[in-house]
Amino acid sequence: MHVIIDLCVVPLGMGVSVSPQIAACQRVIEASGLDHHMHAYGTNIEGPWDEVMAVVKRCHEVVHEMGAPRITTTIKLGTRTDREQSMADKVTSVETKLRNG
Amino acid sequence: MHVIIDLCVVPLGMGVSVSPQIAACQRVIEASGLDHHMHAYGTNIEGPWDEVMAVVKRCHEVVHEMGAPRITTTIKLGTRTDREQSMADKVTSVETKLRNG
Amino acid sequence: MHVIIDLCVVPLGMGVSVSPQIAACQRVIEASGLDHHMHAYGTNIEGPWDEVMAVVKRCHEVVHEMGAPRITTTIKLGTRTDREQSMADKVTSVETKLRNG
Amino acid sequence: MHVIIDLCVVPLGMGVSVSPQIAACQRVIEASGLDHHMHAYGTNIEGPWDEVMAVVKRCHEVVHEMGAPRITTTIKLGTRTDREQSMADKVTSVETKLRNG
Repeated sequence: MHVIIDLCVVPLGMGVSVSPQIAACQRVIEASGLDHHMHAYGTNIEGPWDEVMAVVKRCHEVVHEMGAPRITTTIKLGTRTDREQSMADKVTSVETKLRNG
Repeated sequence: MHVIIDLCVVPLGMGVSVSPQIAACQRVIEASGLDHHMHAYGTNIEGPWDEVMAVVKRCHEVVHEMGAPRITTTIKLGTRTDREQSMADKVTSVETKLRNG
Repeated sequence: MHVIIDLCVVPLGMGVSVSPQIAACQRVIEASGLDHHMHAYGTNIEGPWDEVMAVVKRCHEVVHEMGAPRITTTIKLGTRTDREQSMADKVTSVETKLRNG
Repeated sequence: MHVIIDLCVVPLGMGVSVSPQIAACQRVIEASGLDHHMHAYGTNIEGPWDEVMAVVKRCHEVVHEMGAPRITTTIKLGTRTDREQSMADKVTSVETKLRNG
């Protein structure tokens, strides 16, 4: 099962700046070799379900290892069986309709 | 790693009523034996990370097997290493502050 | 436009326990007079769009006034035009299917 | 109060492809003049709270007008009072740490 997720990891109890923890998560994501795209409120990741979910778990482990006593994460997660669709396909599909609309 | 999640599974391409699919997910959750609480916009589930995530995957599989060509799910997901805290503890903690505030 | 939301307010930079801020949000919600239900990972609120959104804004204002330098909130938000449906209707609809399934 | 949101609007009862409705939301966002960035699982928007929230409401109105009987939306929403921070600042902050880490 192929999945596209949007992942937003929020460490609590680490103060107001969370970019060191987010950078650590980016390293976990990059090390996975999965396609990904960081934006201002999360990171899109796509790939096989188990591989993507292993990345999410590893992010929690790494952020706890950095000293965060508590993490709250928000994930959006999409699967489809009717056809293959990549993250780039999703954006292109909307942009095409914007140009033709 | 113990986790508390809030799970909201949304099947697309099945029409406007999604309660048959949500009921099927509830059966998956109940069959897992994990503590859970359904509310009007999702279901709280708690337990060991891998068991909880297996339930989320099984929900996607079951809803696709029911004919949904596409699913978009939203998950909130909390872990903490400073102390044990159940779903009931979280609600009680706020309610106590409300009474004493 | 009637809306049902699930609101989860997370203050950052306030330490690991956020229940005082969540309790303050609960007081804002209760003062609004809108129907609501707190669960372990958020609070369901329903009512007219502008009234519900005013509550969300007031929660951010109150939590900042309590000293939180940063807040990240997750909202799920549902509207429908085909028929009226309350928070209780949503839960009942699934529970009926569970009993009959 | 300045806010950065991540908006993901999901129409139900319109079939499996939702890109026409997402394109309509993009037009609402562009018409607002607010800074925004579309990704594969939503759109980041930033600006004054009331203006950003008016865009969210207008998206629901427009998608209902296109015939969607039901909409479920997920929003992440961040405010901070300690300093100004744009969407670009957030991404740059993480990228700088990635380069220096």
